[in-house]
Amino acid sequence: MSRSVFGNYFIVSTWGESHGRGIGAVVDGCPAGLSLSPEDIQRYLDRRRPGQSRYTTARKEGDQVEILSGVFEGRTTGTPISLLVPNLDQRSRDYGNIAYSYRPGHADYTFDQKYGFRDYRGGGRSSGRETIGRVAAGAIAAKILGELGIEFTTYTKSIGPVSIETLDRKEISNNPFYMPDAQAAKKAGEYLESCMAEHDSAGGIIECRINGVPAGLGDPVFGKLDAMLAQAVMSIGAVKAVEIGEGIQAASLKGSDDNDGFSVVNGTVTKTSNHAGGIMGGISDGSEIVLRAAVKPTSSISQPQQTITQDHENITLVVKGRHDPVIVPRAVVVVESMCAITLVDALLSNMSSRMDHIRSFYKK
Amino acid sequence: MSRSVFGNYFIVSTWGESHGRGIGAVVDGCPAGLSLSPEDIQRYLDRRRPGQSRYTTARKEGDQVEILSGVFEGRTTGTPISLLVPNLDQRSRDYGNIAYSYRPGHADYTFDQKYGFRDYRGGGRSSGRETIGRVAAGAIAAKILGELGIEFTTYTKSIGPVSIETLDRKEISNNPFYMPDAQAAKKAGEYLESCMAEHDSAGGIIECRINGVPAGLGDPVFGKLDAMLAQAVMSIGAVKAVEIGEGIQAASLKGSDDNDGFSVVNGTVTKTSNHAGGIMGGISDGSEIVLRAAVKPTSSISQPQQTITQDHENITLVVKGRHDPVIVPRAVVVVESMCAITLVDALLSNMSSRMDHIRSFYKK
Amino acid sequence: MSRSVFGNYFIVSTWGESHGRGIGAVVDGCPAGLSLSPEDIQRYLDRRRPGQSRYTTARKEGDQVEILSGVFEGRTTGTPISLLVPNLDQRSRDYGNIAYSYRPGHADYTFDQKYGFRDYRGGGRSSGRETIGRVAAGAIAAKILGELGIEFTTYTKSIGPVSIETLDRKEISNNPFYMPDAQAAKKAGEYLESCMAEHDSAGGIIECRINGVPAGLGDPVFGKLDAMLAQAVMSIGAVKAVEIGEGIQAASLKGSDDNDGFSVVNGTVTKTSNHAGGIMGGISDGSEIVLRAAVKPTSSISQPQQTITQDHENITLVVKGRHDPVIVPRAVVVVESMCAITLVDALLSNMSSRMDHIRSFYKK
Amino acid sequence: MSRSVFGNYFIVSTWGESHGRGIGAVVDGCPAGLSLSPEDIQRYLDRRRPGQSRYTTARKEGDQVEILSGVFEGRTTGTPISLLVPNLDQRSRDYGNIAYSYRPGHADYTFDQKYGFRDYRGGGRSSGRETIGRVAAGAIAAKILGELGIEFTTYTKSIGPVSIETLDRKEISNNPFYMPDAQAAKKAGEYLESCMAEHDSAGGIIECRINGVPAGLGDPVFGKLDAMLAQAVMSIGAVKAVEIGEGIQAASLKGSDDNDGFSVVNGTVTKTSNHAGGIMGGISDGSEIVLRAAVKPTSSISQPQQTITQDHENITLVVKGRHDPVIVPRAVVVVESMCAITLVDALLSNMSSRMDHIRSFYKK
Repeated sequence: MSRSVFGNYFIVSTWGESHGRGIGAVVDGCPAGLSLSPEDIQRYLDRRRPGQSRYTTARKEGDQVEILSGVFEGRTTGTPISLLVPNLDQRSRDYGNIAYSYRPGHADYTFDQKYGFRDYRGGGRSSGRETIGRVAAGAIAAKILGELGIEFTTYTKSIGPVSIETLDRKEISNNPFYMPDAQAAKKAGEYLESCMAEHDSAGGIIECRINGVPAGLGDPVFGKLDAMLAQAVMSIGAVKAVEIGEGIQAASLKGSDDNDGFSVVNGTVTKTSNHAGGIMGGISDGSEIVLRAAVKPTSSISQPQQTITQDHENITLVVKGRHDPVIVPRAVVVVESMCAITLVDALLSNMSSRMDHIRSFYKK
Repeated sequence: MSRSVFGNYFIVSTWGESHGRGIGAVVDGCPAGLSLSPEDIQRYLDRRRPGQSRYTTARKEGDQVEILSGVFEGRTTGTPISLLVPNLDQRSRDYGNIAYSYRPGHADYTFDQKYGFRDYRGGGRSSGRETIGRVAAGAIAAKILGELGIEFTTYTKSIGPVSIETLDRKEISNNPFYMPDAQAAKKAGEYLESCMAEHDSAGGIIECRINGVPAGLGDPVFGKLDAMLAQAVMSIGAVKAVEIGEGIQAASLKGSDDNDGFSVVNGTVTKTSNHAGGIMGGISDGSEIVLRAAVKPTSSISQPQQTITQDHENITLVVKGRHDPVIVPRAVVVVESMCAITLVDALLSNMSSRMDHIRSFYKK
Repeated sequence: MSRSVFGNYFIVSTWGESHGRGIGAVVDGCPAGLSLSPEDIQRYLDRRRPGQSRYTTARKEGDQVEILSGVFEGRTTGTPISLLVPNLDQRSRDYGNIAYSYRPGHADYTFDQKYGFRDYRGGGRSSGRETIGRVAAGAIAAKILGELGIEFTTYTKSIGPVSIETLDRKEISNNPFYMPDAQAAKKAGEYLESCMAEHDSAGGIIECRINGVPAGLGDPVFGKLDAMLAQAVMSIGAVKAVEIGEGIQAASLKGSDDNDGFSVVNGTVTKTSNHAGGIMGGISDGSEIVLRAAVKPTSSISQPQQTITQDHENITLVVKGRHDPVIVPRAVVVVESMCAITLVDALLSNMSSRMDHIRSFYKK
Repeated sequence: MSRSVFGNYFIVSTWGESHGRGIGAVVDGCPAGLSLSPEDIQRYLDRRRPGQSRYTTARKEGDQVEILSGVFEGRTTGTPISLLVPNLDQRSRDYGNIAYSYRPGHADYTFDQKYGFRDYRGGGRSSGRETIGRVAAGAIAAKILGELGIEFTTYTKSIGPVSIETLDRKEISNNPFYMPDAQAAKKAGEYLESCMAEHDSAGGIIECRINGVPAGLGDPVFGKLDAMLAQAVMSIGAVKAVEIGEGIQAASLKGSDDNDGFSVVNGTVTKTSNHAGGIMGGISDGSEIVLRAAVKPTSSISQPQQTITQDHENITLVVKGRHDPVIVPRAVVVVESMCAITLVDALLSNMSSRMDHIRSFYKK
């Protein structure tokens, strides 16, 4: 399945443009009997809401989710859950040269090449607002995982050149960057101030740690859990790299440093290290899953940039309006959502992998 | 689609274990009328063959492909192409403690957790031999792409700490590491000697550059071309990270450095740079696609390692036999194959993306 | 793909329950550049609207469609098209024994068995209202087909024991049953009067004829065009049989009667007969596609019926409210919609079946 | 998924042509730990073998299956099972006018239209031999179902105008037609003699009854169990209609006759009738599933027939060689196999439909 549909068992279909009627998602294959309220979803959406600090856009989006189907008397029914977040700002306006020219770093040119024309209002389908559908669906996935004791710690690992040096979980929600290191957050703020002064933008790295994942999720070969996570996370707009465990560093390690040994401690299987990031041969091993995503700097900057119009004239473009100097903090919950959706898909798939499990399920 | 089936239009299904009867692939959805011979496929398989230098295992695999279906009078018929590479070495032997204990860095433990038991002979389905099916199918994909002028340059960018400093395409096939830099290849050889002396192993980075890709391939949202490439490449056994364009470095750049401008030169649209690696908003932009995969060091090393048996006893394991001290050179063609398969899938999908194209196709 | 998602290229995802917030569909993979307005869709929805005669329920549904995404300046953009038909009647009411007992002929029992509980309001997801999503998506498919000169003639072939004897296309919209035979329509009306007098219901047969389909649609083996049509049409609530061409009658013919010969007349390939119904070996042959669906009688009747409660008590149930004595006329457009969706999927898929077509597409 | 791949969980991919190297299937997603031997599969293949009576072709096919992967020490490993049936007869021969003309009733014309050319040897991929892959995979599915107490009774219900009047299960394997009625079998033999004397052929109806299916299999809307069965069975070469329960007869019944009541007898839920054929709202209800397939008469007859060459000349064609005057008996096991594959897919899918089941699976 490709395009705007993701997953084989927990199937998420998203839709909507930046300045259309709204953004939505349909979740098909959600198990019946899950307690679910709009608040469960709203809590996730609020984590990606702009206007939370001076480092994110001042636009008031105030995205409110409505559940249109699939929930009856507070519980999921097993049928498709339709989620709608109306766009508050659908005013027609003057999009000026945006309508006719190709913004560097954006998908304007490629959409025109593929489709022959494009919805140029605010980026259309390639707007960051597209991620609302992912987060709405991800909140449902995370709720399922939560009931099984699977928990996420997702945070900003770096902004521009500023990296965290500690991992203080309690600090994550204390700063506008979702960094688990108060000192790094302070420096990141200073770095962003300098970017803003230069009409420039920054990128960063998001790290997602998932605990409580049972061993056995994921399939050999193409359906490896890390492969599905890679698709899921790389499909987020500005992500340019995905790493599992040691990630790119693994390439320069020696086997004796990278291999994780096993040990039985007090009757429990443990690993002596976790360079693999919780996935071996594409299947979860029961230890912490560790994934990182590299996010490029915000494409919209208010510096003059060289580009062309759709009529192939060379121009200098200045993108107006206020834009997030960094999108990393808002993308933290998007990465978490995509990981949650992927994990639920693997979780449901895995239930039928053994004949003894099938027998005991059906012959009770 | 997950498990051992990949793609939505050009559908590749692989099968086979290390010490079973053989390894194979079925390619469904290959367009009719492609000229195809066993030699077209053999050429690719030969690039992953072991025993080509002292840095790869001395086992004689001599994998020979047979085309069992889907080709008539030298051309593909549009029906499934079944490819078989018989395993020459199917002898029963003493697998010793491998059968009962979990090798660090391998999928032994996770297979047992998922399936309740495993084919322990040579790693079974999680053996490196599994990639034969990928390469056989990839050769067909590459042939399709070649007819459209789409060409690959894939090589080893680094082994352990040794990175290339030049990109000399002609050098790639001159050294056992497929490095485009003779000097680096020499240093890599020295580094591997030292690893072998220490009974240790190395990893490395593979880079794939694809030229001639038309603009417009890939879909917005989940079916982004880079997302599909990430799944495809991360699904290769030892890959721990996938990067597109600037990749992880993009995270520390500023927007003004990372954005690619457009320019019309002599009537042709060009980009002023290619930090994006040829993909914008998930859709190819017509410039060179650049992808990197980080490969972890070979898991099988002949040092004693701490692990457990399936009965949960702590043991020290020494994995016998001769193993590649580095698998990166042999994985070069595997990365290329997975990229080729992904591109063909995107290529076929894209043909129906515009109503005007559909009209002119059917109303001729 | 299963559940509430249909198609591989033109992907339709539907959602919604009888008494929820609304019914909707998301169409992903619709080609860009199709002119599309709400009226295009409304026209189809109006064909399934109740309250059009005394033989359909008097409820005022007045379903109005809204296009929430995927259309910009009157044309499809290639991104998902979200369609919403709000439910006007969402009042909470007393569902009485329906909530606790299993109506014969309905899905009440099986939903409870599968999901552990069910949305009992008006049948929930298994309500006839579910077909609104199909028809909304089908209208888009039909518009694509119409632009290629592919046209549908769909009608009621029989109601209970009353069958048509002529096929007068102009008559179809002249009677409340969509029968192409005024005499048969009159008799059908009389038959339904007698059913209503007995508090009983009737079924019937719907026939769909599709003209202008190019040869070559459909795939060998599992993706045969007739197989995909069979899934599509059998997935409609009350359908219990699907026939292609001679259908069930083919079983009693001899080969010499059933085989369609070929003939070249004035330079054009024609068939000497069309017993096959336009599909040979799963692939369209360019002649008229003929499909029939048998629809069972309406399950809701106001006679006392023997059934059980969810607590396994035997009871006699009387289903209150007014119900269509026959749903066949309203299902005509649903059958047409599912055929249209299936054909578009096959149409898009077929564009990439030949290497020469791919070459001329990409090397222009 | 379309083309030659079927299923979402239990994924069957088939390949092979009539006169190529062989016919095969790859089964991915088969649960681990199923005891499986070549004999389990051979038993099914033997049921479709020709040359068993004077009413089927005298060709010696003697198809022998080999298991190439996915089974270790007699049990499935959870990885793809590759099945190969070599074609014994691959001799090059003179196909005469078959190579250049379009046989009535066959897929010759449509293959040429779709693919531009075709493998004309024995029908290529559209040969009846294609069903070998279905039966080989179906045998595995049936083995899984057998372990859960799900059993098939599949037989010929009619040949030409001759229908069974009794259902004597023990008689099914006593006559060459797999008819559960000795008298009808005798009459069918006489009817076929007359067909053969006239160089003509016959069709017939196959009925499949499945007992022991748990309630709850199948999904609402597009993934209905009857819809998936319809696709599965209609995808078999010569099938022109699929019926569930009352099937086409339901169209002429009244609701009060067609509805199945429920009753609790000795604490067990039973239905007072089974007009629905075991499926309500697309979900199995626990009673017997009843499906019928109408098979057209054999297309190859040795009468002169009007047709055209690929160069569009009108000719009279006589198809040489000996052909089955009826394929219905050999197709019985094919229908059973496709139903088995579909049921296993639904069975695996259903395991994750309820949150309470997921909780108890993972939190043990």
